[in-house]
Amino acid sequence: MGTARIVFDRWAGRYAGRMADVRSSAVRDLFAAATRPDMISFSGGMPEISRVPADDVVSAATAAIRDAGTEALQYGSSEGREGVRRVVVELMAEVGVRIKPDDVVITAGAQQALDLLAKIFLDPGDTVICEGPTYLGALQAFSAYQPDVVCVPADEHGMRTDLLAAELERLGPRGAKFIYTIPNFQNPAGVTLTPARRRELLEIASAYDVPVIEDDPYGRLRFEGGHCLPLRALDDDVIYVGTFSKIFAPGLRLGWIVAPHPVLGRFLLAKQAADLCGSAYAQVTAERYFGGTRWRRTLQELTRTYAGRRDAMLDALEEHFPPEAKWTAPEGGFFVWVEMPAFLDLKSILAEAVEHGVTYVPGDAFYPDGRGRNCMRLAFCFAEPDAIREGIRRLAEVLDDRLELYRAFAAAGALPGASDTTGGRDR
Amino acid sequence: MGTARIVFDRWAGRYAGRMADVRSSAVRDLFAAATRPDMISFSGGMPEISRVPADDVVSAATAAIRDAGTEALQYGSSEGREGVRRVVVELMAEVGVRIKPDDVVITAGAQQALDLLAKIFLDPGDTVICEGPTYLGALQAFSAYQPDVVCVPADEHGMRTDLLAAELERLGPRGAKFIYTIPNFQNPAGVTLTPARRRELLEIASAYDVPVIEDDPYGRLRFEGGHCLPLRALDDDVIYVGTFSKIFAPGLRLGWIVAPHPVLGRFLLAKQAADLCGSAYAQVTAERYFGGTRWRRTLQELTRTYAGRRDAMLDALEEHFPPEAKWTAPEGGFFVWVEMPAFLDLKSILAEAVEHGVTYVPGDAFYPDGRGRNCMRLAFCFAEPDAIREGIRRLAEVLDDRLELYRAFAAAGALPGASDTTGGRDR
Repeated sequence: MGTARIVFDRWAGRYAGRMADVRSSAVRDLFAAATRPDMISFSGGMPEISRVPADDVVSAATAAIRDAGTEALQYGSSEGREGVRRVVVELMAEVGVRIKPDDVVITAGAQQALDLLAKIFLDPGDTVICEGPTYLGALQAFSAYQPDVVCVPADEHGMRTDLLAAELERLGPRGAKFIYTIPNFQNPAGVTLTPARRRELLEIASAYDVPVIEDDPYGRLRFEGGHCLPLRALDDDVIYVGTFSKIFAPGLRLGWIVAPHPVLGRFLLAKQAADLCGSAYAQVTAERYFGGTRWRRTLQELTRTYAGRRDAMLDALEEHFPPEAKWTAPEGGFFVWVEMPAFLDLKSILAEAVEHGVTYVPGDAFYPDGRGRNCMRLAFCFAEPDAIREGIRRLAEVLDDRLELYRAFAAAGALPGASDTTGGRDR
Repeated sequence: MGTARIVFDRWAGRYAGRMADVRSSAVRDLFAAATRPDMISFSGGMPEISRVPADDVVSAATAAIRDAGTEALQYGSSEGREGVRRVVVELMAEVGVRIKPDDVVITAGAQQALDLLAKIFLDPGDTVICEGPTYLGALQAFSAYQPDVVCVPADEHGMRTDLLAAELERLGPRGAKFIYTIPNFQNPAGVTLTPARRRELLEIASAYDVPVIEDDPYGRLRFEGGHCLPLRALDDDVIYVGTFSKIFAPGLRLGWIVAPHPVLGRFLLAKQAADLCGSAYAQVTAERYFGGTRWRRTLQELTRTYAGRRDAMLDALEEHFPPEAKWTAPEGGFFVWVEMPAFLDLKSILAEAVEHGVTYVPGDAFYPDGRGRNCMRLAFCFAEPDAIREGIRRLAEVLDDRLELYRAFAAAGALPGASDTTGGRDR
C-alpha cells in the first residue's frame, strides 16, 4: 500500500498526534518481499489451520445458517450472541474459571479486546505495566492511546514480581492504569508465570489497586507440566482476554473478554463505537463447531503437532546454534525466545537471513523503546519439523558468520559486554 | 449488562477522559425492554435480511471454505483479500467510480471505517463538520476522540452548502479536520444531496483544503429518480466509505474504504492495532456471493420491498399524522425524518409510544448537542406495509394526545414558536 510508488500526501499535516506513536513495521515490508518458494518462516504466529477439518467447518457453517436463519446474517447484539457466550462459559470452566454468560463480551479476536481496553482506560501519558519483552500487537494497540509503557523484566518463571512491586513503588501515587500480562507460554518469550508468582502478582496489584489484564491465547496449548490456574480463577477482578484463534480458527476473528460488569459496560460503549457489533455469521459457526465434540480431538492433534515442532526446534537449536546463544524452553504455545550477545543487531541481520531463506522477528518489536535488538522470536507453530531443522541450520550459518568477529575479540580478551535483558536459559 | 443490578465500580476513577463523551443510550435500554410480541419497530435500521436466500449464502459459504481452503480460516492481510477488494472495484465501477484493488481496504462494516478515520485524524478539540442531523453511529465513533462536532443544517436537497462555506469561514485558519457527509438518502433525514450541491461541496472543501468523508451505505437502494454520481466519482481525494450490510448482509460485518494511498497507509496501521485483520471467512463468503449473478435479483427485490414500505409509510403519515407534523420524502434508503412543533419532546414521549406498541428514535440521538428533541427518525425498512400502517396509526394517537394542549394554545392565539431545524417537507 503506497510502498511501491512515491505519493504526495495532501493532508500530511492533518493527522492526529496519536499516529506519531503508532509504529510502521519495516519488518512487515521485508516479509512481504520474502516470497521465495522455499522460504522457512519462524516469524508469524499462525496456527496450523490445515489440521482443522474443512468438513467440520462446512457442516458447522451450513447448520448454523440453516438453523439460526436470518439471525446469522443480521446485526447482532454488541455483547455477542448468548450461544457463543455460553461456549465461552464452558471453555472457561474447563480451565478453572466460573463465570456466567453476562460476564462475557465477544470481540473481533483478542486484538480488539486489547484495543478497546486501552481505549477505555488510557489517557495520554498514563502508565501501563507489561512484561519485557511483550506481545507486539498489544504495544501497537496501546500506543495509539499514547501511554508510557513500562516493561518489567521476565525470567524463565515469567514476570519478575519483585521488580513489579519495585516499579509500582517507584511510580508513586499516580500509579499505573493497568498491568498487562500473558501468563501462559508468553508471546514472545515462551515462558510461563509460576503459580506462586501468580499469587504474588495479584497481591501486589491489589495492594496498589491496579487492574490486571490477563491475555491468554495459548493456555489450552500445553505440551507438558501441570495446568496453572488463570489469574481470573484466583481473583474475580482480573480482566481476562481469550480467543478462538488458536483453538479453532483466526479467520473467524472471534475473541472474548471476561471482566467486572462496570468495566464491561464501558467496554460495550467502546465496542459499539468501533464496529456496532461482532459478526453473527462467525458466531453461529463457532457455536455449532463447539457444540459438537470433534473440536476436542482436533485441538489435541494440534497440540501434539505443536509439541513435535517445539521439540524439533529445541533439538535443532542445540545442534546448530552457536555457544553464545541462549534460549527459552516453552512448555506450550508457539514461541521460543533467543538471546544473542549484546553487540549482535538481529534487526540488521534479518535481511541476510531472508536471503538465506529463513525469517524471524527481531526482538526490538517486543519492546516499546528499541531494546531487544540482540534477541529474536522464533515461532515453531507453522513449519514442519524437517523445515524447522533446516531453517535453524540456515539461521545458525548467518549467525556464525557474524559471530566470527566476536570470537576474535574474545580470543584477544576484548569481549564486548553482553546484556541479560530476558530470561534466557543457559544451554 | 449491569443495568439490572447495582454494582460497585472499584475502578470508577481510572477510566480514560474520552469515555466521559461517549454517550450511553437510554433509548437502547428502552428498546431492550420493548419485547411485547406485537411491537412495531420504526427504530432500527435493519435490512430485511429474510429476502436474502439462505441457500445462496450456504452455497457461497460452502464453496468458499472448500475452494479457499485454509485461507478462509487463517489470519489474512490487513487490507483484506484481493478477491473481495476486486468485488468492491466492480461495485464502485457500477456507480461511476473507477478505482483499483489497492485503493481499497476492507473493514468490519462501515462503522469500523468511521472509527478508524476518526482515530487517524482527530485530536481532542479538533473540529468535524457533518450534517445536522447526522448518523448517530458516526457521532458515537467520533466522540471517543473528543472533537468539536459542528452540524451544518440540511434541507430537502441535503447539506446546505451555503451554510457550509459560512461555517468554514467562521472557523478561520484552524479549520476543520474533515467534512463527514451522507449524500444519498441520508441517515436519519432521508434526503439526497443534489448534483449541483455535490459540486459546490467539493469546491468549498477544496478551497478550504478540508478532507471529505463520503458515507454511502444506501446508494444502491434507489426507488426512483436518476442516479447521482458519488462525490468520489467527482474528486479522487474524497474518502469513500461503503458497506456490504445493505446489499448483502450485516452479519458478515464487511465494509470498505476507498482513499488516497497516504490516508490508507495510516488507516492500515490503525486497523492492525484495532483487530490485526478482518475476517477471511466472511470475505471469502462475500467473494463467492458476488461472484454469481443471483445477488442482483436479490438486491432488486430488496429495493422493491423497501420502496413498497416507504410508500406505505408516506401514505399512512398523510392519512394519520396531525397537521402540525412535517416529514421528508426519501427517494431511497431506510428512513423518514419527522419534525413536530418545537415544544413537543419526542424523547419523553417515546415511553408512551412503546406502551402503545410502536418504537422510533428521538431526533436528539442524531445531534451532538441535545437538539432535535422535537424530531424523530422513522425506519420503514424492517416492518411489513400492514404493520407500518398500524404503527403509524398508533404513533399518531400518541402524538394527537400530546397535541391537544398545543391546539388549545393555538386557538387562544398563544402558539409557542416552532423551530425549523431540518429539511422537513410541508405536507
